[in-house]
Amino acid sequence: MRYGAAAPFEPPAQWTDVLAQQLAHRSVRSYRPDPVPDETLHALIAAAQSAPTSGNLQLWSVVAVRDDRRRRRLAELAGEQEFIAQAPLFLVWLADLARAREVTAGAGSETAEGADFVEAAVLSFVDVALAAQNASLAAESLGLGTVFVGAIRNRPLDVAAELGLPPNVFPVFGLAVGYPDRIDGTAVKPRLPQDAVLHHEQYSLEPQLAHLAAYEDVLNEFYAAAGLPQSWSRRVAHRFGTVAGLKGREHLRAALLDRGFQLR
Amino acid sequence: MRYGAAAPFEPPAQWTDVLAQQLAHRSVRSYRPDPVPDETLHALIAAAQSAPTSGNLQLWSVVAVRDDRRRRRLAELAGEQEFIAQAPLFLVWLADLARAREVTAGAGSETAEGADFVEAAVLSFVDVALAAQNASLAAESLGLGTVFVGAIRNRPLDVAAELGLPPNVFPVFGLAVGYPDRIDGTAVKPRLPQDAVLHHEQYSLEPQLAHLAAYEDVLNEFYAAAGLPQSWSRRVAHRFGTVAGLKGREHLRAALLDRGFQLR
Repeated sequence: MRYGAAAPFEPPAQWTDVLAQQLAHRSVRSYRPDPVPDETLHALIAAAQSAPTSGNLQLWSVVAVRDDRRRRRLAELAGEQEFIAQAPLFLVWLADLARAREVTAGAGSETAEGADFVEAAVLSFVDVALAAQNASLAAESLGLGTVFVGAIRNRPLDVAAELGLPPNVFPVFGLAVGYPDRIDGTAVKPRLPQDAVLHHEQYSLEPQLAHLAAYEDVLNEFYAAAGLPQSWSRRVAHRFGTVAGLKGREHLRAALLDRGFQLR
Repeated sequence: MRYGAAAPFEPPAQWTDVLAQQLAHRSVRSYRPDPVPDETLHALIAAAQSAPTSGNLQLWSVVAVRDDRRRRRLAELAGEQEFIAQAPLFLVWLADLARAREVTAGAGSETAEGADFVEAAVLSFVDVALAAQNASLAAESLGLGTVFVGAIRNRPLDVAAELGLPPNVFPVFGLAVGYPDRIDGTAVKPRLPQDAVLHHEQYSLEPQLAHLAAYEDVLNEFYAAAGLPQSWSRRVAHRFGTVAGLKGREHLRAALLDRGFQLR
C-alpha cells in the first residue's frame, strides 16, 4: 500500500513489529472524545525523550493542551482545522533555546552567542522533529491516531501568546492525538518510488523524472478512490508556485527574529 | 534507565514492542564490518517514507554511502569521526527542494517563489528528520546500531561536493548504520526529567530550574560510570557560550544561501 499497486515493496527477510507499525502509518483527522490518560501521555513523552538529540542538548519542549477553549482557539489559529478542537489532546512541539541559554548562563558563561546562529535553530528544529516522530509512532502503537499540524506556523506569534512562550521558544508544529473515530475512513497514502528518494554514492536529479511521472498515476488512483481532486504535481505547484501558497508562513523569518531566533 | 535512578519512570498500563524499542535506544559508535544487505536498506527507506510529511510534499532524499574511500572522506569532513569510516553504511539525509522546484516547473508554474522562504527550509528539515528517525528505529528493531552525525554541517559545502548535490539540495545530518561491535559498551543515556520538558496548557521556564539541578546529578552519575568528564551544564555552555563551540557551523547560513536556500 505504501507504494501503490504500480510499485510493490519487496518485504525484507526479517520483519519486525516496529516496521509493521511504521508502514501502517496513516494520518487521523477524526477523533472520539475519550480522553488520553495521563499515564499514556507520560509514555509518549518518554518515547519522545528516548529519540536521539544532538550532543544531548535536548533543545525542545512540548505543551500538552487539553483545555477545550484553548484547543478551539488553536484550531482557529491553524487554518480553522476542526479536528484540533475535536481531538482530546493537542501537543504543541517547541524549539527551545531558552533552557539552553539559562543553563549556559548558569554555568558562568557571559554570553550564549552560539545560540544566535542558524545552526542553533537547525539543532532545535531537528531535535524536536526526532522526538515528535517517536511520540507519534508510540501513540499509534497504543491504538491512538495522530496527525501533524504545520499550520500553527501560519500565525506563530499568536500561538506563542496563547501558550505563554517566553523569548527563544518557538512553536514548530502541533500533533493532534486521540482515539480514531473512523478507522475505515483513513488510508495509507502511497509515497514516491524508493528510486526517486534513495541515491547511491552520489545524488542525481534527472533519473527521478520518470519516477515522478509514474507517481502521478499512482497517486491519482489514490485520489480517485478517496474522491479528492487529481494531481500531486499541481498540489506541489500550488504550495510553492506563489507566495500566497504559504498562507502566512512567508512571515516565518520575521516571527523567528521576533522571538529571539537571530538566524545569524 | 531513561531517567536515571533519581527519577524512575512509571510504565503505562499498556506496553508495546514499539515503546520498548524506543526506550532502549542508545547511540552506537563501534561497528562490525558485516555489510547491511540491500533488502534491509530498502526496509529502512520504506520506514522513512512511511513517516508523515507535510502536505505529502516529501521534501527529502537520502544518499546511501558504502564506498570505503567516500566514507573515509566523509569521516574527515565530519570532525575526524572514525566510526563513519568503520560503519558499513552511512546515510546522508538531504533537505531536497530541487525535486519540488522541478515538479512545480513541470506543472506549468513560472516561478517556485514559495521555495525561497525560511518556511520551505523548515518544511524540508522537519520532513527529513521525521523520516530519518523512523529509519533509525527500524534499523534498531532489525538488530542494527545507529548514530546521528550533525557534524556533516561543519563543512556542508565539501559534503555537498562529495555527494554531487545540485543546488537546492542540502546535507542536514548523517546516520551511521551497522551491526554493533560492542553492545555492552553502550548505555542508555538519562534525559531531563519529564517535568522539565512537558508543560500543561502553558509553558513555564522558572519551575524547570530545580529539575535542571537534579538532572546535573543524574548525569554526573552516568558520566562517572562511563569514565567521562562531569557536568551537563558545562557541556551545554561549551556549545553555546562562544562562536568557537559551533566548530564551523557558524557558516551554516552562508552555506544554505550558497546552495539556493534563500531563507527569505
